[in-house]
Amino acid sequence: MDKKIGILGGGSWGTALAILLAKKGIDVDIWVRNKEKEANMNKIRENVKYLPGIVLPNNINITSDIQKSIHNKDIILLAVPTHGVRNTLEMIKNDLKEGQIIVNVAKGIEVGSLERISEIVEELVPTSKYAILSGPSHAEEVAKDIPTAVVVASKTKEVAEYIQEFFMTPKFRVYTNPDVIGVELGGALKNVIALGAGISDGLKYGDNTKAALMNRGIIEIARLGEKMGANKMTFAGLSGIGDLIVTCTSMHSRNRRAGIKIGEGLSMDEAITSVGMVVEGIKTSKSAYNLSKKYGVDMPIVDEIYGVLYENKDVKNSVINLMLRDKTHEIADIVENEISSW
Amino acid sequence: MDKKIGILGGGSWGTALAILLAKKGIDVDIWVRNKEKEANMNKIRENVKYLPGIVLPNNINITSDIQKSIHNKDIILLAVPTHGVRNTLEMIKNDLKEGQIIVNVAKGIEVGSLERISEIVEELVPTSKYAILSGPSHAEEVAKDIPTAVVVASKTKEVAEYIQEFFMTPKFRVYTNPDVIGVELGGALKNVIALGAGISDGLKYGDNTKAALMNRGIIEIARLGEKMGANKMTFAGLSGIGDLIVTCTSMHSRNRRAGIKIGEGLSMDEAITSVGMVVEGIKTSKSAYNLSKKYGVDMPIVDEIYGVLYENKDVKNSVINLMLRDKTHEIADIVENEISSW
Repeated sequence: MDKKIGILGGGSWGTALAILLAKKGIDVDIWVRNKEKEANMNKIRENVKYLPGIVLPNNINITSDIQKSIHNKDIILLAVPTHGVRNTLEMIKNDLKEGQIIVNVAKGIEVGSLERISEIVEELVPTSKYAILSGPSHAEEVAKDIPTAVVVASKTKEVAEYIQEFFMTPKFRVYTNPDVIGVELGGALKNVIALGAGISDGLKYGDNTKAALMNRGIIEIARLGEKMGANKMTFAGLSGIGDLIVTCTSMHSRNRRAGIKIGEGLSMDEAITSVGMVVEGIKTSKSAYNLSKKYGVDMPIVDEIYGVLYENKDVKNSVINLMLRDKTHEIADIVENEISSW
Repeated sequence: MDKKIGILGGGSWGTALAILLAKKGIDVDIWVRNKEKEANMNKIRENVKYLPGIVLPNNINITSDIQKSIHNKDIILLAVPTHGVRNTLEMIKNDLKEGQIIVNVAKGIEVGSLERISEIVEELVPTSKYAILSGPSHAEEVAKDIPTAVVVASKTKEVAEYIQEFFMTPKFRVYTNPDVIGVELGGALKNVIALGAGISDGLKYGDNTKAALMNRGIIEIARLGEKMGANKMTFAGLSGIGDLIVTCTSMHSRNRRAGIKIGEGLSMDEAITSVGMVVEGIKTSKSAYNLSKKYGVDMPIVDEIYGVLYENKDVKNSVINLMLRDKTHEIADIVENEISSW
């Protein structure tokens, strides 16, 4: 394929996607901030910190020159953490050319502005084409060619199908979806529920409890999402419950690990220190809580997690509080018509 | 509470629900076929085979007299396996009184007739009130008072709310749902996907692979369900993906364990022997396959599992076949309008 891609960010996911594409015969530039990391990765052909033990194919080039990394590229992959997206886009916005497609893989909501990544992109680069790639995809497994399915969403069908074709391999199946808002919200907000699932495990509750939390959690996210303009079915897909399943059942997940520590009695700060890396769900819990108030959506699980993290509520009561609420219909707010005609 | 219940079937789930209700102060009769089991359980106050180590409260009475077990009861709980439902109903149909509610907890489709349990009940006892109780609920955990959430569905709202009130406790949360067809299909067909998840584990694929199979699996079940008259959102709820999560992530699940053995290279019969108990998903795979043909619904995961089980297809190719299909939209058949206007 003669299409070219520049990947902004040399974390585990950016590197894994670079490897996937390089094996497909696509030349890849990865931009990293740090000159030392540039030299190191180009020399030893490995991302020692984030994907140890996996060789970088020769058609991957590492550069710390961000302008070079986007020059002449058909696709620019945004693979920096949510809090770095705005700053990274500021660095390139004047050099982006018409027709270049920005594909985002960060999963978060900007703190403060409560903006999704597509909103930040639209604010800074209003003329750009945008897609988001999301779904249940541990980077370690994708780098090892383990069968994986993801979803790409874009407002424009042609863009979604172009990205689908670009990334798809016999082991990496890409579905398309028109619902950018739903795919963005699902990927970001599922980390809050993963924290909750970890808390349940830390409290030594059972598989029943965790499955109920995951399921009711994605349903309240869908309720918020629908108010924000998403399609509720998206949350039943790969970027919603699919991603939540991977996050909640794996010890790879920092969010789940932090939740376990909190369930065992550690404070939020102690849990973050114990995990030793960024725990996105903790910031996102605040964003989710604020979004639920802004849009007037009842989100009992988010409320409980927010209370435990930010209001010193006793974690031991959190699950029980959820069990003791009023009796309700399963899909009340989602299928109002059907319920009212029952 | 002065309401009375007779539970037909002394397996793990019937016994666990009896314990839950007895602790709530409700008198319970459990019917078991076997006189020896009746004497044994009444004497040692334990279900040694199915719920070892858990004491039966004194207000649970075991009887092998089925007429006695249903006499003067407000609720009759059907807690026999799917293949025993028809026969059990034949035994009581002439003694059922108007107003008695039949609550089913079996999860299956009758082989041959392809009937759901509610259809069998309607055939044999057309005047009865019917509800189904389903969701992510390992009996062992419910018997130990571990927080659990389930759903009850009935065509009649009053029946659903009556059953909700009857079963609900601070640790056992019951939601209502009008969609009997969806709740019945989800509980039955999820066992097929659990087999598939086990096969993926047996083949040593990853968390990504399993999450994708579970997610795409429930989506194809929802596609079939909608054709059969269910609400697609039900499959995103506790009796659909919620139950599938518990089944696929626990070693308690016989379906998953059988799948693992098949993924490791055992034949269907060898896998059944190895698990040593009824593996419902194996029969249900055939029913699911036949339903997909009957209703003309594309179910690629069910097709692959059916092929491996019943047509000697090589299990090693099964997951790869799923990855290599045509590129598709994520929610194509479900949200046709949105896709066509994209």
